[in-house]
Amino acid sequence: MINKLIDKIRKTNAPIVVGLDPMLKFVPEHIKKAAFDGYGETLEGAAEAVWQYNKGIVDAIYDLVPAVKPQIAMYEQFGIPGMIAFQKTVDYCKEKDLVVIGDIKRGDIGSTSEAYAVGHLGKVSVGSKSYCGFGEDFVTVNPYLGSDGVQPFMKICREEKKGIFVLVKTSNPSSGEFQDRLVGEKPLYELVGAQVAHWGAECMPENGSYSYVGAVVGATYPEQGKILRKVMPRTFILVPGYGAQGGKGADLVHFFNEDGLGAIINSSRGIIAAYQQEKYAEFGGENYADAARAAVLDMREDIAQALAARG
Amino acid sequence: MINKLIDKIRKTNAPIVVGLDPMLKFVPEHIKKAAFDGYGETLEGAAEAVWQYNKGIVDAIYDLVPAVKPQIAMYEQFGIPGMIAFQKTVDYCKEKDLVVIGDIKRGDIGSTSEAYAVGHLGKVSVGSKSYCGFGEDFVTVNPYLGSDGVQPFMKICREEKKGIFVLVKTSNPSSGEFQDRLVGEKPLYELVGAQVAHWGAECMPENGSYSYVGAVVGATYPEQGKILRKVMPRTFILVPGYGAQGGKGADLVHFFNEDGLGAIINSSRGIIAAYQQEKYAEFGGENYADAARAAVLDMREDIAQALAARG
Repeated sequence: MINKLIDKIRKTNAPIVVGLDPMLKFVPEHIKKAAFDGYGETLEGAAEAVWQYNKGIVDAIYDLVPAVKPQIAMYEQFGIPGMIAFQKTVDYCKEKDLVVIGDIKRGDIGSTSEAYAVGHLGKVSVGSKSYCGFGEDFVTVNPYLGSDGVQPFMKICREEKKGIFVLVKTSNPSSGEFQDRLVGEKPLYELVGAQVAHWGAECMPENGSYSYVGAVVGATYPEQGKILRKVMPRTFILVPGYGAQGGKGADLVHFFNEDGLGAIINSSRGIIAAYQQEKYAEFGGENYADAARAAVLDMREDIAQALAARG
Repeated sequence: MINKLIDKIRKTNAPIVVGLDPMLKFVPEHIKKAAFDGYGETLEGAAEAVWQYNKGIVDAIYDLVPAVKPQIAMYEQFGIPGMIAFQKTVDYCKEKDLVVIGDIKRGDIGSTSEAYAVGHLGKVSVGSKSYCGFGEDFVTVNPYLGSDGVQPFMKICREEKKGIFVLVKTSNPSSGEFQDRLVGEKPLYELVGAQVAHWGAECMPENGSYSYVGAVVGATYPEQGKILRKVMPRTFILVPGYGAQGGKGADLVHFFNEDGLGAIINSSRGIIAAYQQEKYAEFGGENYADAARAAVLDMREDIAQALAARG
């Protein structure tokens, strides 16, 4: 799946993943109205609104980008109906041949991580049969519990040729509270990064130069990104924090390797709620999907210019 | 909810939480057969088996213990039908007046943690209405992203008088890989523990001496438990790792305060799959729930003896 991601990045010339994080406040009024008319102001109504909103965005951007990243919390908050909307979104994106990165940030002790790995990336056994629970292509993983929490995901990655992105240095303001603590002379995120490189070496595809084990490093920390790029040369980096969280194209160049690969930049509300920004306000809520498409094109250009400028 | 938990611990004289982590290999054949006869060897069949299995256990132990802890991964692996079984389990345990600790180990950047907090502990707004997504009483939280990932949970705890247990030192063999790294002269888990105490001070109930913000510290690390007990005097500690993972009654005494409170010990397969142990084999699969009840009584006695012996 890492090779498919790389192929699609090359074809689209867009190292971009669109975050499908559908807060209700992003959903245009006409979609909410139709959903609430059909299902009432219920969890089912919210889930229907989210699903229709996503579908519009996916239809508008699937030819431009290699991947999408639904943030499961935004669905989980609506209980079971929300989880069904998550499932429909994953399935629909796969129909459109998008690579689906489930932003689930799971991580637990070994036997429990195995259940998450099986449910999201693998197949679960039921008697003599086996089934996909959610069926994403990649998921994000929290490393705090150490190797035995990550290895069950690695096992499934090797078996199913799927992938993970392990949290190393997250994009949020307080990420430094623990991640930047100095362990000897190095910050914790660098040790986690070195461990990710080590895990990754055990999970290389037969043909290809990037591992099934990737990393998450926030665009809001470009200096740390520069260090981590060197610590993890064969690791694909998922970079959140572009746009709404403050990251800019020029901040991103050090996340990429010399081959122009090695990073994929996420933007969520900057794309999916573009119509709420002044820059794209002319589209209006009715044309929110066209606004999302325009925002993807602008983001692609911003990144291309930044990469060209690094010489 | 922390006060309700404490009241129930006092009434039952059992600082015990039963982990409802229903792997299919624990479910007795007669339950699996009935479920697969009704729904086939499908995700729905697996979910039905898990739900019926749980119901039997809950009916057998609800008068003996204050709380249960469903591990959401064991449900999530079965996709949507599994999540429905999780929801039914939570609802049923609440009907039985058990305190429900959702072992979800979520944690993300601020806006996303807010969605998890709302979905699992609070109420989500849909238009002019609001709904419980999953409705647990407590959840477990991963601290790797720092304060802005935890504060949305704290906010909901204060509003709804619910609680969280933050991962500090987990019970698994490789928990030391990052958690034990020395930051200056102290291991990372101790810094996380100090931060949990700090967060906890901002989340004290009006009447009561323990905070809404608890901690997870594994029974498999009694020495670390002793240190952390002092670092976090007003923090209730959820202690996994008893029984199947190797923790014994004598290892547990340092997790408790002088008041005999401050800790609640989890056992999962040691209770729910007791009938598969030699000690309880006479019960057989048909009477798995009675075996679970016997195992709870033995665990209660083991802990009581250990606490009495500390003098």
